[in-house]
Amino acid sequence: MGETLLPKRLALPVFASDALSSVAYAPDEILITLSLAGMAGFMFSWPIGLMVGIVVAVVVMSYRQTVYAYPNGGGDYEVAKENLGRHAGLTVASALLVDYVLTVAVSVSSGVINAKAMFPFLEGHEAWTAVGVIVLLTIVNLRGVRDSGGAFAIPTYVFMISMLLMIFIGLFRIFVLGHELLSETANLEVVRPDGSGDLVGWALIAILARAFSSGCAALTGVEAISNGVPAFKPPKSRNASTVLGALGLIAITMLLGIIALANLTKVHLIDELTGTHYINEAGETIHTAATTVVGQLAAVVFSDWFQPGFYIMVAATMLILFLAANTAFNGFPALASILARDSYLPVQLHTRGDRLAFSNGILMLSVAAIVLVLAFNASVTALIQLYVVGVFISFTLGQIGMVRHWSGTLRTERDPAVRRRQQRSRVINIVGATMTGVVLIVVLISKFTHGAYLALVAMGLMYVLMLGISNHYRAVAEEVKLTPESDRALPSRVRAVILAQNVNLPTIKAIAFARATRPTTLTAVCVAIDDDQVETILDEWEAEDFGIPLKVIASPYREVTGPFIKFVSQLRTENPRDVVSVFIPEYVVGHWWEQVLHNQTALMIRTRLHFMQGVMVTSVPYQLESSDRRRDRARTLTENQVRR
Amino acid sequence: MGETLLPKRLALPVFASDALSSVAYAPDEILITLSLAGMAGFMFSWPIGLMVGIVVAVVVMSYRQTVYAYPNGGGDYEVAKENLGRHAGLTVASALLVDYVLTVAVSVSSGVINAKAMFPFLEGHEAWTAVGVIVLLTIVNLRGVRDSGGAFAIPTYVFMISMLLMIFIGLFRIFVLGHELLSETANLEVVRPDGSGDLVGWALIAILARAFSSGCAALTGVEAISNGVPAFKPPKSRNASTVLGALGLIAITMLLGIIALANLTKVHLIDELTGTHYINEAGETIHTAATTVVGQLAAVVFSDWFQPGFYIMVAATMLILFLAANTAFNGFPALASILARDSYLPVQLHTRGDRLAFSNGILMLSVAAIVLVLAFNASVTALIQLYVVGVFISFTLGQIGMVRHWSGTLRTERDPAVRRRQQRSRVINIVGATMTGVVLIVVLISKFTHGAYLALVAMGLMYVLMLGISNHYRAVAEEVKLTPESDRALPSRVRAVILAQNVNLPTIKAIAFARATRPTTLTAVCVAIDDDQVETILDEWEAEDFGIPLKVIASPYREVTGPFIKFVSQLRTENPRDVVSVFIPEYVVGHWWEQVLHNQTALMIRTRLHFMQGVMVTSVPYQLESSDRRRDRARTLTENQVRR
Repeated sequence: MGETLLPKRLALPVFASDALSSVAYAPDEILITLSLAGMAGFMFSWPIGLMVGIVVAVVVMSYRQTVYAYPNGGGDYEVAKENLGRHAGLTVASALLVDYVLTVAVSVSSGVINAKAMFPFLEGHEAWTAVGVIVLLTIVNLRGVRDSGGAFAIPTYVFMISMLLMIFIGLFRIFVLGHELLSETANLEVVRPDGSGDLVGWALIAILARAFSSGCAALTGVEAISNGVPAFKPPKSRNASTVLGALGLIAITMLLGIIALANLTKVHLIDELTGTHYINEAGETIHTAATTVVGQLAAVVFSDWFQPGFYIMVAATMLILFLAANTAFNGFPALASILARDSYLPVQLHTRGDRLAFSNGILMLSVAAIVLVLAFNASVTALIQLYVVGVFISFTLGQIGMVRHWSGTLRTERDPAVRRRQQRSRVINIVGATMTGVVLIVVLISKFTHGAYLALVAMGLMYVLMLGISNHYRAVAEEVKLTPESDRALPSRVRAVILAQNVNLPTIKAIAFARATRPTTLTAVCVAIDDDQVETILDEWEAEDFGIPLKVIASPYREVTGPFIKFVSQLRTENPRDVVSVFIPEYVVGHWWEQVLHNQTALMIRTRLHFMQGVMVTSVPYQLESSDRRRDRARTLTENQVRR
Repeated sequence: MGETLLPKRLALPVFASDALSSVAYAPDEILITLSLAGMAGFMFSWPIGLMVGIVVAVVVMSYRQTVYAYPNGGGDYEVAKENLGRHAGLTVASALLVDYVLTVAVSVSSGVINAKAMFPFLEGHEAWTAVGVIVLLTIVNLRGVRDSGGAFAIPTYVFMISMLLMIFIGLFRIFVLGHELLSETANLEVVRPDGSGDLVGWALIAILARAFSSGCAALTGVEAISNGVPAFKPPKSRNASTVLGALGLIAITMLLGIIALANLTKVHLIDELTGTHYINEAGETIHTAATTVVGQLAAVVFSDWFQPGFYIMVAATMLILFLAANTAFNGFPALASILARDSYLPVQLHTRGDRLAFSNGILMLSVAAIVLVLAFNASVTALIQLYVVGVFISFTLGQIGMVRHWSGTLRTERDPAVRRRQQRSRVINIVGATMTGVVLIVVLISKFTHGAYLALVAMGLMYVLMLGISNHYRAVAEEVKLTPESDRALPSRVRAVILAQNVNLPTIKAIAFARATRPTTLTAVCVAIDDDQVETILDEWEAEDFGIPLKVIASPYREVTGPFIKFVSQLRTENPRDVVSVFIPEYVVGHWWEQVLHNQTALMIRTRLHFMQGVMVTSVPYQLESSDRRRDRARTLTENQVRR
């Protein structure tokens, strides 16, 4: 791996792209949801933005406790598993796996929508553009790029700086220079689908709850640092905590800054999907959604003053969103590996060498994300309904786990100073658990019928699947466990059988190897499927004078497997205390299509023999010349894997 | 197989369905092609029918010689290969393989068109109905029905009898009873696409040549008996020859009878595809094709007199056409098996036991036929353009082969009576070869651009593929051939290595088996991918006291395969004269999906070790309880196969 530990200035961009990128769509989703209440709805963007900001602050503070308590990383899955038990851990894991898929789908879709501000010709092709980006990310990750911190750092810092600059310049122009900055949608009136007036009462409260839930998308990715503590330079926990604090501060500043500017420049968004629409000054109805909040703000802040600023802002937003999707491509196999270690997923996902398994993980993530993007036509507004619920399940269980963690340590800890610190941490985590729990309930109620149920169904399926796998592994481990009563008897003798369909080099290699093992008896067997074959092989066998009896079984139905299996089975029955060792010569070829032309019978015989007690199957490979090329390639491949 | 030999009365229907069924579409295709020349074209149906009849007679006589010369069957492929060499044989084989696909496509399409006379609602759904029939035939053949002669015999005899009766009754009513029988298309005038007058001169001759070529479709299936001589009751050749003669007589009678009746009842057909159309008495233009010749004749002969006769005739025609398609499902795997024996196709197609290969053959045939039916919209007229060329390539090469065969026997034969017989046979085959060769040239010229080129391209591809496979097998056989110089040295010692990732029952079974082989050295190797694994396994190993050293290799990159391969490779380098025997415990599970959860590392290690010289890989299966069910199923499967 050759991974060097990350200094803070690199750790921030590496872990922050996911969390920071979500401020690119969270304000949009708040405004879009509020549009359902009509023009009056937009008044509530301030308080909702503030509430989301408070949740961010509380969650960041909570995770700073986790970072100290779990310096080896692990994240919410480990915390929940360790403190709340297997099922809580599995719930968190299911939520996280589903959320990785949604991170890819939402981030890429949002990136494409942002790109539209720069490339208007993408209009109408959003879904397929997003699919193209996902395919590109998949290829890059399948090839296994080295993600040096540098590559991530530049666009992330460009995004942070240009975003903060944009907010600052915007506010400076409005309040100090007194410019009247009005967004392109400032003069458009938003009308509810049925054309009726603004919502009030309970209906309004329901909309506000949904707007808050969608705004909570800003929290996705905040937990990344708590997974990555081991990658920090020492003092690891301290540095991670500092970076987490900085991340929280930046995220809240950006979120509130964007909402403030959006309010001041009168950004109005509509929800295309539910039919809210604009009426312009000429009284015409417009059903097409405007560009994103960041795009509108960049246009109004920079366009009449410093044109490149617009392009830098939009391009950086697009890039950081694609980078956020890329973090899921790293996180998904990492989580799968941990789950495989705990026997919740096929064990080969834990061993690195199996490039195939690693690739399968990436492909599964990619296919699932593509299906989502196509199913929801790359609509962030539609996808976000599925997104936030998983994040808050993970937050809530993680925080409850932390509370129990501190209660546990407090039971044994005697040092008053340490006790005080732990008690303080526990209070913070109790606040965190309560708040995230309340948000989870709000999210569940306000979004369930709008799509969250789909995410819950997917999580349920993952949960059942992983539980099933785990139960299977447990049952098998139980079945194969050594006990004092286990049969440790040594088989007394070895009866060797060679499958000798021809007298050629692979066969004499098999004979030589079989003889080297000095079995008690050694028989060669030929299943003759054509009459003339019997004569030929007997003659050739005599000529070679191996000193081994050849048994020729005539098979009038031209079947090799059956008669051979029957012979072995009979040998077993006659010598129940011995072990039968079957030697099968196999051709090693250079091309996959050559495999079709050889070894099919060997493969079938081996599969069938595996079901027989007391039989071991030895393949004696004979390397054809064409196999050299492939061996070399296999070797190169492995070396590359080890180098990764 | 438990096949009983066929008496003549059963052999006729078994082998005749393909040949006789083609008289159901050959007259149609003659009339359809003639319609391209306008109303005057139909005058030529008589001479063309006669010419086709003569070709049938000559071909039947020629094949009667083959039946005596090759009493073991084999057909044109064997004849061409033996007498004209490998490439001629391969050419015939390619033509036959492609023709099997076309037999299915043409017969099923024609069956569906005939069915329309009974079920008019099929109009417009011909292609998908044909696909449905092919799928049905595929399922039936995949399940492996017992094709007792009886099932074939009944519809074939019903078809023969009702067809001959229809012809007889029709002629009787016209000539004896003096009824005026006019078909439903008698009063429709046929007009050429551009509305111009009848063709004359070279254009007419070109049309006549094409009509003759299409009519030669009546010959498809005639060669079936020469493949099947071994299935006849003795005297095999004599009986086969008799049945072949009877078949020829019946086929010619039917063909000429249908054409005669069609002429007398003034059946007029049009070619929908090229735009010839009808003008009725009211002067209206009709573009829809009428029903088949058999359908029209059955209607006019039976409808005003014995209504059930119509349904019996049409149903029998439909059934015999589907049966003809079914013979291809039997013939294709049989030919593939012979080609596999001669190393032109993967060798497992020759061994029966491999149900998978057999099934693959049927599926390939079925998919190719479905593609053809859909591509040509189940149009017999379009498909027939591809069909006849392969049949005549096979006929011509077969006949030339027979001529050389007789020339060969005449070189050694001394008995004057036998010589006279052989000379007579040679003359017949020379006539046969000349005639089929001329027909082949006519077919090639008249049909090449109408679709025959497609069939030739497909045959070319098959030819190249089979030659490639054969060359591969030859090269491999050459490479593995035993020569006096071959290395027959026995490896001096066996170094055994056990992959011991856990201390459990599969591992101790592998240890017990490995010990039973009494290797020179025995080492257990554990590749530890987690730190705590090292401690655990060392403790457990100590506790068991196997008396075998355990080597633990730490793999910080969580890779099992690479370090293990490296260890084995090192062992090889240190002991170049010894053979390394690697024992891998494998789990035998009951469900395919459990396979995903186990043995993936074992599989990869085995594949990689196969590329290493001097290493044999022994899998020691450990049967989990769930494997019982599958073992039972595997056993049942084999017994079924053997019973087939």
